[in-house]
Amino acid sequence: MAAAAATLLSNGDAKPQNTGRFASVYSEVQNNRLDHSLSLPAVLRKSFQVVDGPPSSAAGNPDEIKKLFPCLFGQPSAVLVPGDAGNAPQSLKVGVVLSGGQAPGGHNVISGIYDYLQDRCKGSTLYGFRGGPAGIMKCKYTVLNSEYIYPFRNQGGFDMIRSGRDKIETPEQFKQAAETALKLDLDGLVVIGGDDSNTNACLLAENFRNKNMKTRVIGCPKTIDGDLKCKEVPASFGFDTACKIYAEMIGNVMVDARSTGKYYHFVRLMGRAASHITLECALQTHPNITLIGEEVAANKQTLKNVTDYIVDIITKRAEFGYNYGVILIPEGLIDFIPEVQLLIAELNEILAHDEVDEAGLWKQKLQPQSLELFKLLPAAIQEQLMLERDPHGNVQVAKIETEKMFIQMVETELENRKQAGAYKAQFKGQSHFFGYEGRCGLPSNFDSTYCYALGYGAGALLQSGKTGLISSVGNLAAPVEEWTVGGTALTSLMDVERRHGKFKPVIKKAMVELEGAPFKQFASLREEWALNNRYISPGPIQFVGPASDKVNHTLLLEFGAQA
Amino acid sequence: MAAAAATLLSNGDAKPQNTGRFASVYSEVQNNRLDHSLSLPAVLRKSFQVVDGPPSSAAGNPDEIKKLFPCLFGQPSAVLVPGDAGNAPQSLKVGVVLSGGQAPGGHNVISGIYDYLQDRCKGSTLYGFRGGPAGIMKCKYTVLNSEYIYPFRNQGGFDMIRSGRDKIETPEQFKQAAETALKLDLDGLVVIGGDDSNTNACLLAENFRNKNMKTRVIGCPKTIDGDLKCKEVPASFGFDTACKIYAEMIGNVMVDARSTGKYYHFVRLMGRAASHITLECALQTHPNITLIGEEVAANKQTLKNVTDYIVDIITKRAEFGYNYGVILIPEGLIDFIPEVQLLIAELNEILAHDEVDEAGLWKQKLQPQSLELFKLLPAAIQEQLMLERDPHGNVQVAKIETEKMFIQMVETELENRKQAGAYKAQFKGQSHFFGYEGRCGLPSNFDSTYCYALGYGAGALLQSGKTGLISSVGNLAAPVEEWTVGGTALTSLMDVERRHGKFKPVIKKAMVELEGAPFKQFASLREEWALNNRYISPGPIQFVGPASDKVNHTLLLEFGAQA
Repeated sequence: MAAAAATLLSNGDAKPQNTGRFASVYSEVQNNRLDHSLSLPAVLRKSFQVVDGPPSSAAGNPDEIKKLFPCLFGQPSAVLVPGDAGNAPQSLKVGVVLSGGQAPGGHNVISGIYDYLQDRCKGSTLYGFRGGPAGIMKCKYTVLNSEYIYPFRNQGGFDMIRSGRDKIETPEQFKQAAETALKLDLDGLVVIGGDDSNTNACLLAENFRNKNMKTRVIGCPKTIDGDLKCKEVPASFGFDTACKIYAEMIGNVMVDARSTGKYYHFVRLMGRAASHITLECALQTHPNITLIGEEVAANKQTLKNVTDYIVDIITKRAEFGYNYGVILIPEGLIDFIPEVQLLIAELNEILAHDEVDEAGLWKQKLQPQSLELFKLLPAAIQEQLMLERDPHGNVQVAKIETEKMFIQMVETELENRKQAGAYKAQFKGQSHFFGYEGRCGLPSNFDSTYCYALGYGAGALLQSGKTGLISSVGNLAAPVEEWTVGGTALTSLMDVERRHGKFKPVIKKAMVELEGAPFKQFASLREEWALNNRYISPGPIQFVGPASDKVNHTLLLEFGAQA
Repeated sequence: MAAAAATLLSNGDAKPQNTGRFASVYSEVQNNRLDHSLSLPAVLRKSFQVVDGPPSSAAGNPDEIKKLFPCLFGQPSAVLVPGDAGNAPQSLKVGVVLSGGQAPGGHNVISGIYDYLQDRCKGSTLYGFRGGPAGIMKCKYTVLNSEYIYPFRNQGGFDMIRSGRDKIETPEQFKQAAETALKLDLDGLVVIGGDDSNTNACLLAENFRNKNMKTRVIGCPKTIDGDLKCKEVPASFGFDTACKIYAEMIGNVMVDARSTGKYYHFVRLMGRAASHITLECALQTHPNITLIGEEVAANKQTLKNVTDYIVDIITKRAEFGYNYGVILIPEGLIDFIPEVQLLIAELNEILAHDEVDEAGLWKQKLQPQSLELFKLLPAAIQEQLMLERDPHGNVQVAKIETEKMFIQMVETELENRKQAGAYKAQFKGQSHFFGYEGRCGLPSNFDSTYCYALGYGAGALLQSGKTGLISSVGNLAAPVEEWTVGGTALTSLMDVERRHGKFKPVIKKAMVELEGAPFKQFASLREEWALNNRYISPGPIQFVGPASDKVNHTLLLEFGAQA
C-alpha cells in the first residue's frame, strides 16, 4: 500500500516553472519528455557556412511584390553546408515571439534558438516577447534562460510566453516595434507563426532594413492546419502531432462503430481554410466517407450533392448489412460550397438592412437558388444563421456545426428514400468535433525534432546576418541527420491580393492539391474504404517503442511524389 | 524515398481477422500490442485449489433475495489458493457473451478464458455468442480458436463477437437460453457485463440450477463508468483506460486554455449514473471546477446553486487576472438535481396529455418552483425539452447538452454581475463532450492484464463447478503476481427494488462515496485547483516506458484507504 501511495504522489513531482503566472506539476509522461534528447541534422552538429542560392522572385505578381519589398525583393534563399564560416563568435541579442493559434512544438523552436545561441554565440541574450506581437509593440518580454526554458522542453502549448493575434502593420505599430528593437538593441527577431504572421514578419524585416536598423527578422512555419508549405518549406510544425491525436480519437470511434454496429459517426475536424488535416486523418484511419473541401469546390458541388454522396454510400452499405460508419468532415467544408457562400452573402445583406420580419416575408428577397438552399437547411441551422452574428452583424459561418447539419440532412434524405422503397434500414447519427484537443498535445517525436531544428537553424540564419527568410528544414522523409537546413526568401512565397483598393502581400495558403500524391492515394482507396471496412486505429501517440518515429502520411507521400 | 514508401506501407500490414464480417488492417501500435505478453497472478501460474468462504447473505433484504434465488442464496464466495485440486483434467464446453456498452479489455477477458481452457482443460470448446444475450437465445455463435482470437488480443472494442443490450428475463427467454445450453452441451457460460447484466447472469444461473442443468454461469465486471464495484470486486474493467483517454484530452485542453488565456472549457464526460469518471479525471488533471453528481444530490443543490458555484469561481479568478479555465461535468449531472427531476416529471405529465399550446398557457400547469426553473433554462434547452421525446413520449434528459446549458446559464449570470459591478472581465465558453472516444480505445496495460486475469479466473471457477459467482481479482494496487483471484457470490451483491408491484433483484450501482478516499482527496485539493492553476497533462497512454504501468488514482486511493 505504501508503494501505491508513492506511485500516486510521483504523479505530482513539482517541476520548476518560472513563468510567474502559475506554478505547475507535471505528469510522468511530461516529466519524461523533458529529458528526451533530440537529434540535430548533421550539418548543424559541426561547423557550417551559409551559401546563397540564385536571386529569387515571387509566387505571383513579382512587380508588385518588388514595390512592396524594395529592400528585400529578389534576395536569395540560403542553405547551410559543412565548412567554416570564418566568423569570429559574436554574442547576439535576439527576440522571439509566438503568433496566432497554438501548435505542438512551438516551445522546441524557442529552445532550439536558445541552444544555438548558447552553443555558437556565447554571451547572447534571448528575449521572449509575451502574448504575441503585442508583446513586441509594448516591449513586454521575459529574458529566457536555461532554468526558464527547461520545463517547456518537448512540451505542448504556447504557455512559455503565450501567443496573440495582434498584427504589426500600421506605421504607428512599426514604429513601436522599432522602438523595442532599438531599446533592447536586438540583432534579430524570430517570428513563429502561420502564413499571415510570416507575411508580417517579412514586412517587419523590410521596415527594419529600410530604417537601416541592424535587427534581422526570421520566420518559422507554424500551423496545425498544414496549409503553410511549399517546396522549400515542406511542412508546418504541429500538423503531425495534431493529426495523430485526431486519428487516435477517430480510430477509437471506428472500433466503437464496428462494435456497436448501429451508429454513423460524423466527425468534424479542425482546419478552416484547407482540408489537409481531414485528408491526413483519412490516410491514417480509412474512414467510410471523407469530404475534402477543395474537391467539393473544384467540382462545384451543392449541399444537396454532398448530402446525396453520403446518402448513396449509406444506402449501399445498408444493402451489405452495415448500418454504421465513420464520416470525416473538414471544419471549413461549407465555405467551399459556392451556393452556400452566395446564400451567406445575401443573408448578410438582408440582415445589414434589418429586413427580417416575423412572418418570413424577407425570404422573398433571396435569389430563388438561395431560397431553395435555405429551405433545405435544418431548422436549427436556419436559426443559427439568423440569430448568431459576429460584432459586424454578419452571419457566423464558423459557428455552424456542420457535422450536426449533415446528420439532419442525411436523416431527411434517407427518410425520402425509405418512402420510395430505396432504403430499409435504421440510421442513427452521432456527432463529434475534434479541435482544441489536438492543438496543445505533447509534440510527437517528429514535431519535437523538427521544431528544434527549425529553431536551431533560425539562430544560424540570424548569426550569418540573414533577414526576411523563413527557416527551412528539408529532406524530412530521410533520417534526421540527413535533413537539410536553410532559409527561404519570404518574398519568394508571396503574391498580392487586392484589398480595399490596395495590393496586400500574402503568402498563399497551400490547399489540398487534387493532383498531389496524398489526395491521389486517398482517391484511389476511398471506394474500397466506403463499402468494405478497412478501419485502422492508430492508437495513442507513443514516445518510445512502436510507431514512435513514424511521420505523417502527407509528408511522406509528398516527398515520395517528388522523388 | 523508397524507405518512406516502405514506412507508409508498414502501417497497412494485413493481419488475419476471421470474423467473416470484415477484413482489417492494423496500425503499428495495434500490431505491437498483439504480442504484448501478459503477467498472470502467481496463484494462476501453478496448481491451485478453490476454497470456499463462509455462507453469504445479500447487500440488502436478504429474505427477499432468498425468495428470488432459492438455489443460490447464501452460497459462499470462493478464493483460489496454491495447492492441488485433485481433479482429473476434463474438457469443458463453455460459452461467452458480451453484454451492454463497450469497455476496453473485453477481448482480453475472452482470451483469458480461452487460454485457461487450453492450459488446463485440454480438448475444451469455447463458443462466442454473437451480438450479446440475443446470441444465446438465438443460438448464434462462433467457435473461438487460437487463430480467431489472436487478432483481438490486447485490442479495444467488442468487435470479436459484438455486444448487445437484450436481456434474458422472461420465462420464454430463459427457455430459449436453456435450449441453447442443452444443444451445445454447455458446462459453463461467462457473462461479461455491468450491474444489470450480472444480475441477469445470476438469474440465469439460478434458472439453470433450478432445472438441474449442468451449465454454470459466471459473471465478469465490465463498465467504463466504474460503478460496478464492491470490497471483493474492487474495479470494473475499462474504467482505467477510458479515464486515461479522457484525461489525455482534458490535459491537452488545459494547456490550450492556459496558452490562449481567454476560454473557459466546459467538458462533459461520459458516465450517466455515477460520477466516478469525472472524479478520476479530476484527480488526474486538476481542473479549476469539477461537479460531482453525488455531492450535488447530497447537498440538495438547485441548478441556480450550481451555476452560482461556477460563477463565483470565475469571478474570483477574474480578480487574479485569469479569464480562462477548465470545468468538468458528469454526463448525468442534471439527474442528480432534485428540482430538475421534478420539472421533468411534470413536463412528462403535461406532454402525455398533449396539453401544450402555442401561447404557452400550459406553463401555468407547472408548480411554481418548476415554472421558475423552466424560465431559468436557456431557450435552446427549453426547446430541446419540449421537442425531443423518446418513443414513450418522455422528455429525453440524456439528449440535453449539459455543458452548453451551463455555458449559457453562466453567461447570463455573469452578465447580471457585470451590471451590478461585481464582474468586469470577458467570458467565452467552449463546450466539449468526451464519450465514445474512450469506450473503445486500446486497453491500458492495467486493463489488459486485469481483464486477462478476470477471464483466466472465470475459467478456473467454471472448472471447479462454481456457478452464480462474479470473477473477482483483488489486491490490485500490489504487483500483478500478488493479485488475489476468486469469485464472489452474485447474490451477496444484491438488494431488491420494487418495480410494477414486484420485487426485482438489483446489484446496486456503486456511487461516488463522499466519505471515500478518492472524493476526500479531491475535496481537500479543489480550492487550490480552483484559483491557482495546477493543471496536469497526463499525455497519451504509453504502452512502454514512463507511466505505462500506472494505475488510476481511484483504485489506488480506495486500496490505500482500506490499508
